[in-house]
Amino acid sequence: MNVSLRESRVLVDWDDGRQSAFHATWLRDNCPCRECLHAGTGERLVDVTLLDDGIAAASARALDGDDAEIVWAGDGHVSRFPGEWLRAQAAKGGRTRPERTLWRAELASRIPAGRYGEVVASDEALRDWLAAVDEYGFALLHDVPIAPGEVARFVERFGYVRETNYGRVFDVKTVVNPNNLAYSSLALGPHTDNAYRDPPPTLQLLHCLASSARGGENTVVDGFAVAEALRSADEAAFDVLARHPILFEFRDAETELASEAPVIALDARGEVAAIHFSTRAAAPFRLPPDLMEPYYDAYRTFGRLLVSAEFRVEFRLEPGDLFIVDNLRVLHGRNGYSGEGARHLQGCYADIDGLRSRLAVLRACPESRRSG
Amino acid sequence: MNVSLRESRVLVDWDDGRQSAFHATWLRDNCPCRECLHAGTGERLVDVTLLDDGIAAASARALDGDDAEIVWAGDGHVSRFPGEWLRAQAAKGGRTRPERTLWRAELASRIPAGRYGEVVASDEALRDWLAAVDEYGFALLHDVPIAPGEVARFVERFGYVRETNYGRVFDVKTVVNPNNLAYSSLALGPHTDNAYRDPPPTLQLLHCLASSARGGENTVVDGFAVAEALRSADEAAFDVLARHPILFEFRDAETELASEAPVIALDARGEVAAIHFSTRAAAPFRLPPDLMEPYYDAYRTFGRLLVSAEFRVEFRLEPGDLFIVDNLRVLHGRNGYSGEGARHLQGCYADIDGLRSRLAVLRACPESRRSG
Repeated sequence: MNVSLRESRVLVDWDDGRQSAFHATWLRDNCPCRECLHAGTGERLVDVTLLDDGIAAASARALDGDDAEIVWAGDGHVSRFPGEWLRAQAAKGGRTRPERTLWRAELASRIPAGRYGEVVASDEALRDWLAAVDEYGFALLHDVPIAPGEVARFVERFGYVRETNYGRVFDVKTVVNPNNLAYSSLALGPHTDNAYRDPPPTLQLLHCLASSARGGENTVVDGFAVAEALRSADEAAFDVLARHPILFEFRDAETELASEAPVIALDARGEVAAIHFSTRAAAPFRLPPDLMEPYYDAYRTFGRLLVSAEFRVEFRLEPGDLFIVDNLRVLHGRNGYSGEGARHLQGCYADIDGLRSRLAVLRACPESRRSG
Repeated sequence: MNVSLRESRVLVDWDDGRQSAFHATWLRDNCPCRECLHAGTGERLVDVTLLDDGIAAASARALDGDDAEIVWAGDGHVSRFPGEWLRAQAAKGGRTRPERTLWRAELASRIPAGRYGEVVASDEALRDWLAAVDEYGFALLHDVPIAPGEVARFVERFGYVRETNYGRVFDVKTVVNPNNLAYSSLALGPHTDNAYRDPPPTLQLLHCLASSARGGENTVVDGFAVAEALRSADEAAFDVLARHPILFEFRDAETELASEAPVIALDARGEVAAIHFSTRAAAPFRLPPDLMEPYYDAYRTFGRLLVSAEFRVEFRLEPGDLFIVDNLRVLHGRNGYSGEGARHLQGCYADIDGLRSRLAVLRACPESRRSG
């Protein structure tokens, strides 16, 4: 290993002949000494935004044991970077988001599924089930105890319940004078839940307690797959849905929720980050007159793709079954059902950060966990 | 009132001489009949994405009582729109987001504040306090009972606690071997909380139970005001922070959270939607080499504005005081404090949709609430 300076960069020549260049300010920002990085928490103590201008290395050299030492101009601070850490950083790509696998109707023949008994008894089974949720945005779980509240108790195994005006859990069954059409026997087209909420819950679980009514099959569709298909087929339609937010609303006697969001939300990279779609909860569009025609064309195209045989997965929940969706990605719906017999699901919202945290901890070898 | 058709539009000539044009598809989508709009929930039953192509009005006319009647081509469906509703829709602008007032250091002399006794006893006082939080993203509350858990009980008056790995409430005081520097006596620069969470909590409350230590004053800064100042002064710097997401991380023995977000997050309109900033929790940046210099320049400029006298508001919490911030807008921090004496805050996360719902309900005259 050889370490040298060139302008604002520190060059490291590795023993295998490769070279890495590290920006001086980046190195100063990531100095691992006890003064700059808190040993117990791994949090940064140095605040790079408050350092004097002209952050520059005065000297740089390789030390025994594969470390790089930098002495900083100005304050004379000394940083010592383990070569292993520098190599790992140099190998990291720009992408930091979890992998996901987009899917279409063919997922019906291989729906990610687990068994409650295994998932609660085995860290490996839980890890695999959570990994499937993270990758596909959807999974089934069988043999969940058929008891009220069980869905929230299950959430607590990997995350935290997001309580809302519907409660910690809510009962999806036919009621007289419902405040939400979910609580009727009507069919529900594919939708993301609570688009009128800010932030919307990022996970939804529905747990079947009774299912003797005719109909009521559930449907799911990968909204990200549909959005990408739209982008490929008609980029102008994709853009109009991404650029123009619409309003979603919910109100009953105690609640009045409203949130503005585009049907297809993009992140800073221009990638699809979230879908907000509910023909039931969308407020009358407020769009410039010349946008009405292209907007409705795009909206109708997207809505038709969502229900098309190419993308739609249908399944029937039996008592003890539970399904989970990434609510910003996978839209769910249901067929209408007959008034005879019973259909009772219990629902619960949660957030995906808790799930991903539990998954990451289950994936990590305990001995490899960073201590600083 | 006169109603006529012109191409894809329905024209309404109001008695005052004004004219409004409504797009045919928009009208069909918003038909208020019992078949298209559910009377009890106000939810849309018609799914405009599934209607046949060629949505067009066959005829349109004014009816007695200031209504507009449209008979639709194809299915012969009849829609009847109250003139009052059409007038209200025509008057609505495109903007649907709540108003906010950006602020700088001068807010220190008029910090929005309420008294616990009044806010819990009076709907008007609660409404005014919640309105201040919504408008300024920050408010104080005095005379809160000095008891553990009180901060969560207060949240339940207008919303829902967001439970996290830190618990429903968390104790911000000096502990041995903290998993988070908040639990030390160190100064904390301005930051948004939990930038490593997806979604981050949108509200944070901190309730002072003890405050006899020297120092530990709290600071807040309106991140949206700072972002707009940066946009005015240096649009390229603003853009680099908005376009390039960075990774935030947190881990301890039980938790491993990571989320990618830009420091300045823009919504679909290009307006500032959220700030994600924590020099403690930012992972080493993974940026293309040629972006390191402009990124750090922009990041350091933003960080310096956040602590500048122009924007920063400092205040001291006494026992019984509580402050709340819109965690995606207002950054908070604290001065370091001495090891002698006590400083004990209890914190709680919640979400802004619950707050805005409660505010909307308190603002609405009960008799004006929409029933369908």
